[in-house]
Amino acid sequence: MKFQPKNLLLKSLIVLALAPALSFAQNEASTIDAIRQKALEESKVMSYITELSQNVGARLTFTNRYQLAVDWAMKTLAGTGLQNVHTEYWEPSGRDWNLKKYTFTVVKPYPMFINSCPKGWSAGTQGLQSGDLVYLDARKPEDFEKYKGKLKGKIVLVSFASPFYMSFDPVATRYADSSLDQMAVIKAKTAEELDKEKTEEDELTKKYKPYFQLMTDRIDFCNKEGAIAVVESGYRPYGSVMSFSISHPGEVNDQFDFLTTGYRTGFPDGIPQITIAMEQYNTLVQMLKNNTSITAELNIEAELGTKPVKGMSVLGEIKGSKKPNEIVTIGAHLDSYQAGQGAADNGAGVAIMIEAMRILNSLGIQPERTIRIGLWGGEEQGYLGSTDYVKTHFTEGTEKHYVYFNLDNGAGLIRGIQLQNNSKAVDLMKEWFGKASLEGSNTVSVASAEYTDHVPFAEAGLPGFQFIQDHLDYYSTYHTQVDLMDRIPEDDMKKNAYLIAVLTWLAANHQGNFPQ
Amino acid sequence: MKFQPKNLLLKSLIVLALAPALSFAQNEASTIDAIRQKALEESKVMSYITELSQNVGARLTFTNRYQLAVDWAMKTLAGTGLQNVHTEYWEPSGRDWNLKKYTFTVVKPYPMFINSCPKGWSAGTQGLQSGDLVYLDARKPEDFEKYKGKLKGKIVLVSFASPFYMSFDPVATRYADSSLDQMAVIKAKTAEELDKEKTEEDELTKKYKPYFQLMTDRIDFCNKEGAIAVVESGYRPYGSVMSFSISHPGEVNDQFDFLTTGYRTGFPDGIPQITIAMEQYNTLVQMLKNNTSITAELNIEAELGTKPVKGMSVLGEIKGSKKPNEIVTIGAHLDSYQAGQGAADNGAGVAIMIEAMRILNSLGIQPERTIRIGLWGGEEQGYLGSTDYVKTHFTEGTEKHYVYFNLDNGAGLIRGIQLQNNSKAVDLMKEWFGKASLEGSNTVSVASAEYTDHVPFAEAGLPGFQFIQDHLDYYSTYHTQVDLMDRIPEDDMKKNAYLIAVLTWLAANHQGNFPQ
Ligand SMILES: [Zn+2]
Ligand SMILES: [Zn+2]
Repeated sequence: MKFQPKNLLLKSLIVLALAPALSFAQNEASTIDAIRQKALEESKVMSYITELSQNVGARLTFTNRYQLAVDWAMKTLAGTGLQNVHTEYWEPSGRDWNLKKYTFTVVKPYPMFINSCPKGWSAGTQGLQSGDLVYLDARKPEDFEKYKGKLKGKIVLVSFASPFYMSFDPVATRYADSSLDQMAVIKAKTAEELDKEKTEEDELTKKYKPYFQLMTDRIDFCNKEGAIAVVESGYRPYGSVMSFSISHPGEVNDQFDFLTTGYRTGFPDGIPQITIAMEQYNTLVQMLKNNTSITAELNIEAELGTKPVKGMSVLGEIKGSKKPNEIVTIGAHLDSYQAGQGAADNGAGVAIMIEAMRILNSLGIQPERTIRIGLWGGEEQGYLGSTDYVKTHFTEGTEKHYVYFNLDNGAGLIRGIQLQNNSKAVDLMKEWFGKASLEGSNTVSVASAEYTDHVPFAEAGLPGFQFIQDHLDYYSTYHTQVDLMDRIPEDDMKKNAYLIAVLTWLAANHQGNFPQ
Repeated sequence: MKFQPKNLLLKSLIVLALAPALSFAQNEASTIDAIRQKALEESKVMSYITELSQNVGARLTFTNRYQLAVDWAMKTLAGTGLQNVHTEYWEPSGRDWNLKKYTFTVVKPYPMFINSCPKGWSAGTQGLQSGDLVYLDARKPEDFEKYKGKLKGKIVLVSFASPFYMSFDPVATRYADSSLDQMAVIKAKTAEELDKEKTEEDELTKKYKPYFQLMTDRIDFCNKEGAIAVVESGYRPYGSVMSFSISHPGEVNDQFDFLTTGYRTGFPDGIPQITIAMEQYNTLVQMLKNNTSITAELNIEAELGTKPVKGMSVLGEIKGSKKPNEIVTIGAHLDSYQAGQGAADNGAGVAIMIEAMRILNSLGIQPERTIRIGLWGGEEQGYLGSTDYVKTHFTEGTEKHYVYFNLDNGAGLIRGIQLQNNSKAVDLMKEWFGKASLEGSNTVSVASAEYTDHVPFAEAGLPGFQFIQDHLDYYSTYHTQVDLMDRIPEDDMKKNAYLIAVLTWLAANHQGNFPQ
């Protein structure tokens, strides 16, 4: 009782102390409301992805089609009012591939309607070529010997036939709550565990190396023997075709060397290389094994560039008001594979990130840190653009990295984030997801994502994260010719843009370092 | 006690009475054992289906490819030692379609790798034709008026774009026990219910008639306007293409008129008609709506027959020892659509039925009734072959029909049978499935199956049944270009041949009429 005056004083002090915080929280809440309104009610995200997927289309890095994507991205970023919209060049260089026409069909013993596409950077055929099919069933040197002199003018199947396969799984999925709960309670890995994991991965790579070497050698053998073209199996069932890039001759260390280095300069054009649907491939192999004569016709009109083309990424930003040299980067890869239109991989990520920037810029209030968007080239060739960005700007540059958010798993709703073993950031990310308050989106996991543009950040020891997204039908369709707008649910796209805008805004204004 | 002598007498009488029955049961059991051995350990079913799918390939009724299927079936049935192997001709006649080559590709604004195939009996293009795409967005006469003079030399998209679609269902399924249990307790429908069902169906047909009429009219309009070809959407997602036959001009009553009557004679060759993958179709429509110029190239080398070709089915039999004029028929349709190789639809059924006949014939013991296999033509055109068979042999013929078993839903394990509202046959069928004792295969339902060759039997008031089979991935793949051997699990095929052989054997030897 006697302390009442003092209590009153304390209370008033507390009120005073809370005042700016409340005001900031109120600002924050109203900013989040404004973002929600712009993201959900005034969205442009579907027009961005439609333009990129359909007007630009497939956009292999280094090719003329990628240049169109860069032009589109520059114009679009400038159109949202971003500052400092520019391209950044990086090494290594690659080749242009000007594909003009493609057909492949089986004509004998009867017409077959083959789903196929050329591997990226495939040489042309110099007009329509007709050839009998041969299955190159060679593993050892003495096997190859048997085919010597027999492949000239042939179209050669070089993949193994896939084992019988029938999918009892759903094509598209969303995360069950139980799966998300499991991800949320994973423990960060110890240095020992990470070492062990690395060793196991290296061993696996070593184990599979002979397979990719054999495939490389088979293709090289066909080239030397004067075959018309080589045909590979398309990795996915039910008629869609997953296609990567051509194989160059020489030693390969792993699947990446085999699948993704077709862009490299300094090789002759080589033999035309195509991919066909898995069960059609299996069928042709079975028919050849049963001594059926099969004739196919292939026409690839394509020009391979003769001069090295520099790699390019597109960047733009909202300058920070208080810490302009501290950078919050959000990004997605602008390049795609050749088969479809790169709608889910990664038109979705590009469109969402552009939309988030448009929304943030349209708020008319400056963040404390600089917010930058990076639309990377060369992701499919091994994160080339993002790797260069990390080096140029941060590890060898003068800017200070704050955090990087990456999107690259299709259009599915963001259900949370994977923190690359960084358990110190869990609480902060939970707080931010809590503030965004997007239903179904609140899982913070220390699990590590792989295989996309956050990896160069993580490898440089910088906070760089990939989100957890509902897979939808991504794993049945990415890198295939049905990676088209039918993969893209509008509702997920809008919500994702909302969430990215909120998290980015919170990151750009957070008081203190990013926990690490 | 005092009745013991009498009891003894009774016992001995019972023993005497049972003796032949026991002996018959023993014979039956050992026959079933022999069938099991031949079906599971000495199977030829996979070689039958491989030959039909891959050596013969797609086999549209009336075409030269169907003739090859007939030749193969005659030779194969004769090879199993069946008697009276012969073809039967039926009306109506149809046209040959000699397809020699097919390619379709989009070249501008950039190459797209379109999964497509010609509709059955499509006219050729007279060489490679290049044309801009147009979406014919016409419903009313005044809409058509707007396109007058504008379609010459164009390739015209005539289907509506499909709504956004993503499949959260499994591609392949097997029946859950709970679903089978539900089927088993369905009650037979009353005459009133059947009438009501019929009325509802007729109303549905009436409701959809304008859609199929509009599609027909659009195609006819393109033909009259001198378009190069029409393009339709392929009904199935994820890159596979479901294709039917061409549409002829004139009035259509329902989907069957629109989809299945391309074989009809007396029409000019008409405009080339093709089907492309659903999401690729959607994409092209969206691009056209956004004013993108698209150029495609189409080459169909095809000759349409000028003389009517008679329909044909292939039959063979094992003559009955006691009631040779009573016929147990088992059958499947020999024809297929053009897109794939007709492995699941209906190479599977054909191979299983042939295998069942081979097994039964190899037992070296004669059935009481005649067992006949019917490999029907024209199923895809409306059960033409089986309809003729019922009429010629039974309703207007002199043979006595006992029961018909049909297979036509792919290779999935037979889980039971659908008795077409015949509740009197339930107990007998349960008894037979019980004797076959195939795990997972014992559901007897009075439900009615539709849409295949048992229908003409049922419509003539004769017992004719279709089995319940695990769907596997049939509904994603039938009539598509991936209806290939990858749809065919060997284990299911063997078990089905076993079951069919047992049921057929029991039917051919059953004492008494088939309950109806
Ligand atoms: Zn990607
Ligand atoms: Zn069928």
